[in-house]
Amino acid sequence: MYLASDNTSGVPGQILAALAAANAGFVPGYGADPAMDSLRTQLRALFEAPAAEVFLVTTGSAANALALASHCPPWGAIYCHRLAHIEVDECGAPEFFTGGAKLVHVAGRNGMMSAQALEAALRSAGRGVVHNVQPGMLSLTNLTECGTLMRPEDIADLAAIAHHHGLPVHLDGARFANALVAAGATPAEMSWKAGVDVLCLGGTKNGLMGVEAVILFDPARAWEFVLRRKRGGHLMSKHRFMSAQMVGWIEGDLWRELAGHANAMAERLEAGLARQAEVELIYPRGGNMIFARWPEARHAQLQAAGAQYFVMPASQGDDPDDDPRALARLVTSWSTTDAQIDAFLALFDRPAGR
Amino acid sequence: MYLASDNTSGVPGQILAALAAANAGFVPGYGADPAMDSLRTQLRALFEAPAAEVFLVTTGSAANALALASHCPPWGAIYCHRLAHIEVDECGAPEFFTGGAKLVHVAGRNGMMSAQALEAALRSAGRGVVHNVQPGMLSLTNLTECGTLMRPEDIADLAAIAHHHGLPVHLDGARFANALVAAGATPAEMSWKAGVDVLCLGGTKNGLMGVEAVILFDPARAWEFVLRRKRGGHLMSKHRFMSAQMVGWIEGDLWRELAGHANAMAERLEAGLARQAEVELIYPRGGNMIFARWPEARHAQLQAAGAQYFVMPASQGDDPDDDPRALARLVTSWSTTDAQIDAFLALFDRPAGR
Amino acid sequence: MYLASDNTSGVPGQILAALAAANAGFVPGYGADPAMDSLRTQLRALFEAPAAEVFLVTTGSAANALALASHCPPWGAIYCHRLAHIEVDECGAPEFFTGGAKLVHVAGRNGMMSAQALEAALRSAGRGVVHNVQPGMLSLTNLTECGTLMRPEDIADLAAIAHHHGLPVHLDGARFANALVAAGATPAEMSWKAGVDVLCLGGTKNGLMGVEAVILFDPARAWEFVLRRKRGGHLMSKHRFMSAQMVGWIEGDLWRELAGHANAMAERLEAGLARQAEVELIYPRGGNMIFARWPEARHAQLQAAGAQYFVMPASQGDDPDDDPRALARLVTSWSTTDAQIDAFLALFDRPAGR
Amino acid sequence: MYLASDNTSGVPGQILAALAAANAGFVPGYGADPAMDSLRTQLRALFEAPAAEVFLVTTGSAANALALASHCPPWGAIYCHRLAHIEVDECGAPEFFTGGAKLVHVAGRNGMMSAQALEAALRSAGRGVVHNVQPGMLSLTNLTECGTLMRPEDIADLAAIAHHHGLPVHLDGARFANALVAAGATPAEMSWKAGVDVLCLGGTKNGLMGVEAVILFDPARAWEFVLRRKRGGHLMSKHRFMSAQMVGWIEGDLWRELAGHANAMAERLEAGLARQAEVELIYPRGGNMIFARWPEARHAQLQAAGAQYFVMPASQGDDPDDDPRALARLVTSWSTTDAQIDAFLALFDRPAGR
Repeated sequence: MYLASDNTSGVPGQILAALAAANAGFVPGYGADPAMDSLRTQLRALFEAPAAEVFLVTTGSAANALALASHCPPWGAIYCHRLAHIEVDECGAPEFFTGGAKLVHVAGRNGMMSAQALEAALRSAGRGVVHNVQPGMLSLTNLTECGTLMRPEDIADLAAIAHHHGLPVHLDGARFANALVAAGATPAEMSWKAGVDVLCLGGTKNGLMGVEAVILFDPARAWEFVLRRKRGGHLMSKHRFMSAQMVGWIEGDLWRELAGHANAMAERLEAGLARQAEVELIYPRGGNMIFARWPEARHAQLQAAGAQYFVMPASQGDDPDDDPRALARLVTSWSTTDAQIDAFLALFDRPAGR
Repeated sequence: MYLASDNTSGVPGQILAALAAANAGFVPGYGADPAMDSLRTQLRALFEAPAAEVFLVTTGSAANALALASHCPPWGAIYCHRLAHIEVDECGAPEFFTGGAKLVHVAGRNGMMSAQALEAALRSAGRGVVHNVQPGMLSLTNLTECGTLMRPEDIADLAAIAHHHGLPVHLDGARFANALVAAGATPAEMSWKAGVDVLCLGGTKNGLMGVEAVILFDPARAWEFVLRRKRGGHLMSKHRFMSAQMVGWIEGDLWRELAGHANAMAERLEAGLARQAEVELIYPRGGNMIFARWPEARHAQLQAAGAQYFVMPASQGDDPDDDPRALARLVTSWSTTDAQIDAFLALFDRPAGR
Repeated sequence: MYLASDNTSGVPGQILAALAAANAGFVPGYGADPAMDSLRTQLRALFEAPAAEVFLVTTGSAANALALASHCPPWGAIYCHRLAHIEVDECGAPEFFTGGAKLVHVAGRNGMMSAQALEAALRSAGRGVVHNVQPGMLSLTNLTECGTLMRPEDIADLAAIAHHHGLPVHLDGARFANALVAAGATPAEMSWKAGVDVLCLGGTKNGLMGVEAVILFDPARAWEFVLRRKRGGHLMSKHRFMSAQMVGWIEGDLWRELAGHANAMAERLEAGLARQAEVELIYPRGGNMIFARWPEARHAQLQAAGAQYFVMPASQGDDPDDDPRALARLVTSWSTTDAQIDAFLALFDRPAGR
Repeated sequence: MYLASDNTSGVPGQILAALAAANAGFVPGYGADPAMDSLRTQLRALFEAPAAEVFLVTTGSAANALALASHCPPWGAIYCHRLAHIEVDECGAPEFFTGGAKLVHVAGRNGMMSAQALEAALRSAGRGVVHNVQPGMLSLTNLTECGTLMRPEDIADLAAIAHHHGLPVHLDGARFANALVAAGATPAEMSWKAGVDVLCLGGTKNGLMGVEAVILFDPARAWEFVLRRKRGGHLMSKHRFMSAQMVGWIEGDLWRELAGHANAMAERLEAGLARQAEVELIYPRGGNMIFARWPEARHAQLQAAGAQYFVMPASQGDDPDDDPRALARLVTSWSTTDAQIDAFLALFDRPAGR
């Protein structure tokens, strides 16, 4: 009953096998491995982006921070939702890598920016006024931090505003695969066709050991990205072990299969929770994350029974004052099983409290 | 005949097995995995340092830059050899992580700082003069970039000077295991007993996929280190895969076995080269690295035959003007075999030139 | 009718005279001038703070950014009002000087933080959670950006909360003199006795050419401040010209006289505006700043007649949606005259529109 | 007998008068003052550079650091002489403003880079190699830190090499006026015609209170410069006082008159010292600085008699081991008089020792 995060899972057997296969012999390091060439070719085909540049790093924070720093100057404003991972969960990595850019909140329900709020923020930014930080970049997240799904048209609406104002668009895709499967969109539709300039394609939360691809749809930024990656200590010498994992993940469409499974487990969980009168589901589910409220006594009983999930501070909700009860975040993964979901749901049939 | 770098090797079977074993089930992320607890305990025992704090990162550049940044302010001078990895090979990572500290060269033969030069540098630094950067830290490397060995007493001599001037001491131990085995010293003798305050213990060049431990002998720096690591995008979520590798490497003394093998291969190579009249061996060999000069025509023939090694710019030597011939750098690893060495040496018995 | 800002004024004759007097002969530079010694002594006496350290810089942005950077680490959260100068008007100087700290908004009416909101922000900050930036510093402004006055007890309430959570307190005193005179408080009451740890005492907006004192009530931060100042390019070589101005400003209480005059001019202006039915005064006036709304046609006519003032974006107000009319900001200075105020007020007696 | 530095002087009467004249009335701030428009026009004419952009700051360190940061990325190598002010005397300001660029020493006699050494440094830099910092910028100084003069052709030789390798050229002109007068060159010949892309034109050491102009011959960098200046806390609100000083300095060619006087005083001093057998003059004098050696006992007697000058560490000389006697640095200024020089020289006719 481990629903705390998708990054508490291990990796599927195929990935272990890919690592073992990659282990033989001497191979050039630092990204010059043949597996990286293969991965680049496959991702370009998959994203219908023959000129895109692809680079690997080991964490989502590194991917995001390097992507932002390569597209936004130190005096730039990065527009994001107040719940964005880059704002809340990276201990200031974007500020560190950009040299002090400012993250500016844009409001919106369900973890999604409203187009109106973005337009207003950009119109009131002091562009050309030396006293103010300058509009620098738009950063979106899909799935959002509220577990909701941005459809390609949602991304396109916001990206169009950003582009109109001359800003490049970043997509934090730590759960891109879950979003893709949920939307039934192609990788291209969910990224550059919707206006994304740089995508952080998360592998770690969807079955890899610690591999994230940064896809630069504007290859002119590649050399700067590469230098910033090195300088950030993120250029792996034994790079083949990263490439091999991601090749194993893309090949045979494993990545979408894993994400589809995680989403299906969340759907099963959601259906079960919906049957409980005491449970209030929050946010429309987009993929493999569920947010819900239930009485304090239920939390106590669940946790005593060994259920593991994250309890968000009350301010997570868009209007937290309505209901002081804390919010449970439940995340399923590629390795979650029907039995685990059912065991968790069965706990709700027992009396609450320890 | 791959002698380009020890990081072009793969990993031994034990490490693959450790990864597979670590894969089962759900495990808390971000360093809270039980394997990390075990590793910490084992390293504290091994280093006879019960209060030391231990953290893992995936690259040597990250380990070094975070270690420096946690001990040296932005206005600090970091004293290092002009050939130090932090000066030459990290694309300015130390400057980036420290917020702009200055690396100051201290001269010395064979890639090793001279105590006299260090003392002179510290005495002439403008301590207390606001116009000058302030003495900040001493950074040593063992094995050095010239492949030479610093014995515990060599480290102690330099560290004593640094401590006398109030500076903490960093040891870049990308090849610490090779040095340790070569010196026949204990881990404690080669680190804190010799005055090292923070050690970057390299695993990647000695059989891991990309795991480096930073050992803080002064635990007061730990929280700052941890925040800087996160902020630098270097806190792995599926941390268990790093911990497990290093546990597998320490257990049963595998790490010293691997390093001993690499050193033995270099010894075999050195002995063979010494028999060639055309070969000039440079620097006294400390562990698994050899620097040598031979005629241009020999380079051409070796490379045509598939030998892979790095040719350093002529300025690598301490007095490069004596001899314009470029310097070959040959590095053996845990996976180098007798047969590979012998095949390489056999090439010297053929005529030079393509 | 120049009411755009107090920094569009010149300097009083006493300051020009002080400059001329300071000009004679050769004088040691970089803060070692005797006038600086005298200023330090006088400010320590004035602030009843014999151990305080005092340093001069030429701009308020430099003063604030250096004060923040000397008290808050790169991973710190700096709590401030969303309208704070450090947040809005310094093009990211705090982020640059701190190495990427994050400015976090704390709500409150009239440009003043609410104690409840500060307490809530600090309680929900993830102290000790490595993913989050860590509570770093509290930054207040007096007069606030809304021209309102924080009384010593207002400062003390907020500072007590900050200190309870271990945070040092910064006061941006660009208009400290105006606030002091308005509150009838002593310098000590308005600063360290209320819990301020570092004060930026603004001279520029109150009659100097570009001189701001940073007063560190915790002298342990002085050496770091001094190095950061130098490194920021803010250590003046011909420092005597700064010291001499501020000595001339403190001596004979000129600084409070100038501020008192500016405040009186604002009071006269406020009284006149209050008589106009079309004018809505916003925020309770604290010193020399007035915010007001009036019809668009009136703006046109005033500006056509040569009146100069700043029109703030509508979002300046605490609830801008109530009233879409833009906000006029009127600032008086030491050099504003009765005649100028009366001439401006007289324009309201004419018909609006061009 | 104050020969410690040209920045221990005051300012000539014309500058005080210019300040007084600039004081009247309300004037827009932050560089929008009419005097700045006038100054820009005059400097463009003087430098025969109609498209150049001009910005003022208060210190040489700020001018240099902002100029470098606007032309060189964080991963850039800035080539400079080991004695350069940016390397030795700015407490790491270039590293801070650039975000961690690396200053790389280029050898040469008399404080001047040798073209051969520059060419060698650029050829051996790892351009395109991700592990190395990338060639970023060339920084020259005129007068050099050894007081020697770079003639336009000396600058042009080095700048041509830099440009050939794609690097922009910075000239630290803290004593540009002294160099200009000594060379008998035009401002254009000494700057952009010789290949300088950005010039820091020093006013402070030549009669201003703290005013340095940065002249960007490539106006495409202007907006970035302006934002970096603001963000660095270097945009003065009462900017008119800086503009007015520099207008007063340029008008009537006062700046060259002052520099010519300082140079003439140094010439007089040099001639007197040359007559003393115990004095060894070091470096060919370029303008208003003299370096010399004399016996320790003479230092004692001079200082006891009130002579003020700087004694450089012995390593200042190009080959300090020849002669352990410390080096005296004597600097004349616009306000040095014949009588002061003669009084200083007369001390040499007395017996040495206290």
